[in-house]
Amino acid sequence: MATALSRFDRPQHLTEPACKVALVGFGTVGSSVARLLQTRRDECRLQLTHICNRHIARKKVDWLRPRVAWMEDIQQVLASDADVVVELMGGLDPAHHLVRRALQSGKSVVTANKQLMAHFGSELLQLAQDRGQYLGFGACVAGGVPVLSALHDGLAGDRLVQIRGILNGTCNYILSRIEQAGTSFAEALAEAQAAGFAEADPTDDIDGLDAGAKLAILARVGLRVEVSLQQIACRSIREITHVDFEYARELGCTIRQVSTAQSRGGKVYLAVEPSLVPLGSPLAKVSGSENLVMSTGEFGGETTFGGRGAGGDPTAVAVVSDLLQVAHYRAIGASHSHRLPTVTAEVTADSEAPQSLRFVVRDRPGIIAALAGVFSQHHINLDAVLQRPGYPKSALPFVITLEPCASARLHAALAEIGGFDFLVEAPLRMPIMK
Amino acid sequence: MATALSRFDRPQHLTEPACKVALVGFGTVGSSVARLLQTRRDECRLQLTHICNRHIARKKVDWLRPRVAWMEDIQQVLASDADVVVELMGGLDPAHHLVRRALQSGKSVVTANKQLMAHFGSELLQLAQDRGQYLGFGACVAGGVPVLSALHDGLAGDRLVQIRGILNGTCNYILSRIEQAGTSFAEALAEAQAAGFAEADPTDDIDGLDAGAKLAILARVGLRVEVSLQQIACRSIREITHVDFEYARELGCTIRQVSTAQSRGGKVYLAVEPSLVPLGSPLAKVSGSENLVMSTGEFGGETTFGGRGAGGDPTAVAVVSDLLQVAHYRAIGASHSHRLPTVTAEVTADSEAPQSLRFVVRDRPGIIAALAGVFSQHHINLDAVLQRPGYPKSALPFVITLEPCASARLHAALAEIGGFDFLVEAPLRMPIMK
Repeated sequence: MATALSRFDRPQHLTEPACKVALVGFGTVGSSVARLLQTRRDECRLQLTHICNRHIARKKVDWLRPRVAWMEDIQQVLASDADVVVELMGGLDPAHHLVRRALQSGKSVVTANKQLMAHFGSELLQLAQDRGQYLGFGACVAGGVPVLSALHDGLAGDRLVQIRGILNGTCNYILSRIEQAGTSFAEALAEAQAAGFAEADPTDDIDGLDAGAKLAILARVGLRVEVSLQQIACRSIREITHVDFEYARELGCTIRQVSTAQSRGGKVYLAVEPSLVPLGSPLAKVSGSENLVMSTGEFGGETTFGGRGAGGDPTAVAVVSDLLQVAHYRAIGASHSHRLPTVTAEVTADSEAPQSLRFVVRDRPGIIAALAGVFSQHHINLDAVLQRPGYPKSALPFVITLEPCASARLHAALAEIGGFDFLVEAPLRMPIMK
Repeated sequence: MATALSRFDRPQHLTEPACKVALVGFGTVGSSVARLLQTRRDECRLQLTHICNRHIARKKVDWLRPRVAWMEDIQQVLASDADVVVELMGGLDPAHHLVRRALQSGKSVVTANKQLMAHFGSELLQLAQDRGQYLGFGACVAGGVPVLSALHDGLAGDRLVQIRGILNGTCNYILSRIEQAGTSFAEALAEAQAAGFAEADPTDDIDGLDAGAKLAILARVGLRVEVSLQQIACRSIREITHVDFEYARELGCTIRQVSTAQSRGGKVYLAVEPSLVPLGSPLAKVSGSENLVMSTGEFGGETTFGGRGAGGDPTAVAVVSDLLQVAHYRAIGASHSHRLPTVTAEVTADSEAPQSLRFVVRDRPGIIAALAGVFSQHHINLDAVLQRPGYPKSALPFVITLEPCASARLHAALAEIGGFDFLVEAPLRMPIMK
């Protein structure tokens, strides 16, 4: 049995060959990674040797040691003597090509690319396994919060049944603004864009696709199921208004974009959706770009992981932590793989949560009776009807909460309700978390 | 380079030899570990082969598969063919002997013994390193919360500067009872004992020695310093009364037993002490036997880890997670070590926190002036004086808060104040957390 080298063992790292690192993508995260490696170069065996980016002349910085080679072509990176490629390009193409080729050519890879790992993680992890290389992707979920390594290693002894989290800071910012300042969704989004918290095209964030990719990765590592992104029910936060927060408050709740992967009787429930969250829940207290992940295990119960879910430096911490794993495994002459014996997810659409439905109607007698009648026909139990005073009769918002029921029955009821002419807009459905 | 085996890879585990596990200590945690291994035996290569405990006839259970060998003598365990010994005896002796001998005889070890790892961790990790064995101790801190592996691996890329936490559920229970029911410390302790949350001899918990051992281990893994337990300033929660919560509330705080390891300019501040914690802080929301650890990194900022810090099943999750690491490293033919390039801690007693001092006096004119005079002489700035109405003049409690100052000055001032004849009891000092 070989003797292990610890990852920061100074005497050893001075005699060991350094692990050569090529950075592809020199934006916010890339320059944070470079700075972190530069700051800590005496403590570890990682050596930044190559940086690749388009328009490299504009990107060059003077604070890096001169031995770093700058390049514009990923072919040069693939042909280089780098031991590990850090993929920070984002997007699927050419990132997918780069990662695959790097692994095929005997390099390890560390990536912060959640879309890549959500779409092609299964294939790429298999490839890494086959080639004896390390594929690190801790930076794909929750930035600096080491939740993936915690689920993979620290909670490996448990059997996890649920992972739930707040995985998108943009949504959190927008929802907080609607709640606190009473602004409309459009105003809150414009503010978020002005403040740099939302991108010019915010679709991926607000419609749940960003969180969905992270959820697919969490489900793979934590629940050991392979999920295609199409299997995740993603619902937008676009319809949320200040009125929804007023009603939420009556239920002792606030509203958050919550991502849930739940394993139940061999099936998995997967959703990213605006949800009512009790004010006492850790989920309700997440602010700004913070992320929070809660895992529930059959044996260990609930465990929470919180911290800075975005930004250059926290994401760079996750990247460098993965790089240290690469260096460690290289030093002990063994390869490691994140490959997990995942199974393809069989998905259920049935949430176990009670539901809240917010209606906006042209008021007239008999509306509640009409709605209650439909729910009754579909064997759905009403829990409460909430109607606050002071809203206009021409567009009167009120809320009905329902006990948990099969999604097929709920959809059938909602389809029938959609035909009522008193509706001003489609009802807004949100699950009510425990 | 060898190809890695994933830890749950079913086809491989069927062909690989199983990793034989000997359990020493078959109490609450031990039987949880056995049950967990039994439940998951088809998913991993771990095989429970030996159980060792005193009075084994009384301990035998019928739900374990018959191939397990029961024994009373740890020499039999050491002489057995077990690959890994799980030490769940507690205490220093003979646990220290067992772990050392097991490592020397080429067995890996997993332990939940925080006192052992706090006192002898440095020596034992070195021994494991020298013998190419794994020494897992994730269960020593925060039960099922995988904070040690997260600090060691997931946050390895950062440079941590502070670790703070609520590490003792007994103290948390007692303090909550004093706060909520207005009971005395003695009553709350008796309740905790009756409810099974405190031991017959609760000294280790309430005087901070239990949390201190955990803090020493957190400091080793997170801050990479070796700490002797004598270097940790442990202060008891025995003096806390309901009045202290009333004053804390005036400062927007509650009171918690907080453990802090803080790295500052080459020195380390180490303390376990009752502290004022802002009501909005995650530390204020920890209830019952929950634990919470917050780490602060130079690059990644603040990260929190929370969950069930005690109990058989959560602790067993941590033990089995470590066992899976042992099996993984055995399978890839490499050893791994937790050994970190720690340095011996140079300790500072200077907290950066402002302080709260609660006095109980026989009231008379001039008391505040006398106290203020002493602080002024010692160049300590007062921040506020709080005196709530309605307390008896013969034992009047009030609070003075101080700006941060060097501990030598504070102690000199308190020594001088100790001579005042108006004091009914010694002042109670608590730091005020941010």
